[in-house]
Amino acid sequence: MTLTEYVARQQARVDRALDRWVPPESTLPNSIHKAMRYSLFAGGKRIRPILCMAAAEAVSDSPIGIENCASTLELIHTYSLIHDDLPALDNDDLRRGVPTCHKVFGDAMAILAGDALLTLAFQVLAQMECPPDRQVALIAELSTASGTVNGMIGGQVCDIEGEGQHPDAALLEAIHRAKTGALLRASLRMGGIYAGADKEELRALSCYGEHTGLAFQIVDDVLDVEQSSEALGKTAGKDAQQQKITFPAVYGLERSREMAEEERLAAHLALSPFDERAERLRELADFIVHRRA
Amino acid sequence: MTLTEYVARQQARVDRALDRWVPPESTLPNSIHKAMRYSLFAGGKRIRPILCMAAAEAVSDSPIGIENCASTLELIHTYSLIHDDLPALDNDDLRRGVPTCHKVFGDAMAILAGDALLTLAFQVLAQMECPPDRQVALIAELSTASGTVNGMIGGQVCDIEGEGQHPDAALLEAIHRAKTGALLRASLRMGGIYAGADKEELRALSCYGEHTGLAFQIVDDVLDVEQSSEALGKTAGKDAQQQKITFPAVYGLERSREMAEEERLAAHLALSPFDERAERLRELADFIVHRRA
Repeated sequence: MTLTEYVARQQARVDRALDRWVPPESTLPNSIHKAMRYSLFAGGKRIRPILCMAAAEAVSDSPIGIENCASTLELIHTYSLIHDDLPALDNDDLRRGVPTCHKVFGDAMAILAGDALLTLAFQVLAQMECPPDRQVALIAELSTASGTVNGMIGGQVCDIEGEGQHPDAALLEAIHRAKTGALLRASLRMGGIYAGADKEELRALSCYGEHTGLAFQIVDDVLDVEQSSEALGKTAGKDAQQQKITFPAVYGLERSREMAEEERLAAHLALSPFDERAERLRELADFIVHRRA
Repeated sequence: MTLTEYVARQQARVDRALDRWVPPESTLPNSIHKAMRYSLFAGGKRIRPILCMAAAEAVSDSPIGIENCASTLELIHTYSLIHDDLPALDNDDLRRGVPTCHKVFGDAMAILAGDALLTLAFQVLAQMECPPDRQVALIAELSTASGTVNGMIGGQVCDIEGEGQHPDAALLEAIHRAKTGALLRASLRMGGIYAGADKEELRALSCYGEHTGLAFQIVDDVLDVEQSSEALGKTAGKDAQQQKITFPAVYGLERSREMAEEERLAAHLALSPFDERAERLRELADFIVHRRA
């Protein structure tokens, strides 16, 4: 199977899991389930769930039901996009190529739909089939990575407060490490925990996750400068316009591209404890760095 | 110990637990921890945690650490108040006697502080000392009660969509059952689950929770009509102004008061499987119905 075929297959698995866990539009109150599904199924790349599943496959031959665990990363990621796009935050009209949730359903419903996706992530982790001690570890991992202390929400706060400040390498790294890095790292670790990884494997997956996460963010910043809104499915050039602290702003475009490549190699190196079962993780690191959107 | 002394002691236990779990204001990023603590420590009555702890005490002699479990109900309740008070939702300026979170910290920070409290609730349940199978059951309980299907968020959606509609008994009950009833019921059930309640005990606690929850909401609606903003610590008369569907609007004030009394008696009846260890729960049902703010 080519990587493209593998990614398409895993996306379909995640989408089916999400479709099972998110109440149908016909369930009352309809409006919020419509809003939740609108944002969830607007064509996300499912990078976090795919990394989670690939990590589980690197540890165990057939991690049955891993798509349930993996789908919770997409629930968290989507809630964070809905809330970040609100007028009070980034005030963005376009996401994944379509109007943002609040543009279609209004601010009140977008706030509640985000809350609902966040809540549902933990409901899925508590209700899926899995040994309870692993479920608890997964919930601890996801909540910490999504939280305020070196987690996603904390990164979002720093990002807002950093707007207009002098682009500084230390601040940039702190923002990134929390805002996108923590959840990407958790994606790998959750796959490992679900599949019963030992300490060494979990350490390797964390390290891979940190480097891949950094590569992902650098490439994201570079694409925001280089690409059109049409290609990205979201408003391009927004970072510069909002005076966000980005990798191109601190290091320039050329050095940023080199850094992404260095992170890619470090991610490969981190996987040395694993045999060919981690091949998909290696390919995914390459894919993340070489993508054009 | 009088009920007043008991309540004060339990409030203090919950506040200490919250203080341990919520990062201090000195932890980066400071601003969000300030916002979280501002709303958490603005003088809430801690009714849900106190009910949770009393339920655990009805089941087990010394449910050690129950205040950690109980505090997660206050984290969820406070996040829901912060988000409900936002301009996009109820647009309220006053809560628990002080300006609302977004009035002090801005809309963006209030949205993120709410998200953070919601996330932290599940982190606490996953990180506290407790057998893993009970932790998973508690997380399933809290997430379901807070969610969209017959849960708190679903109730909030119905409440918003019901504004200005004809006050209708069935709609009123559906809104209440979800918006405040589900979390109050979960408060009792979580206390029971934490303390290892058997099926019959859990059923009795659920039934008590449903009746107490309904009584609580009826009294809340009545007080909104009768009392001043000063006495309530929030904007009084807001329900009528926003054309909310309330018990006084559907049944009138006198019949609403009678209904609260009926629910109080039904709550007492539900506790018949319990001996004197449920005495605090009986007193709390009386307290909830006879309170003046």
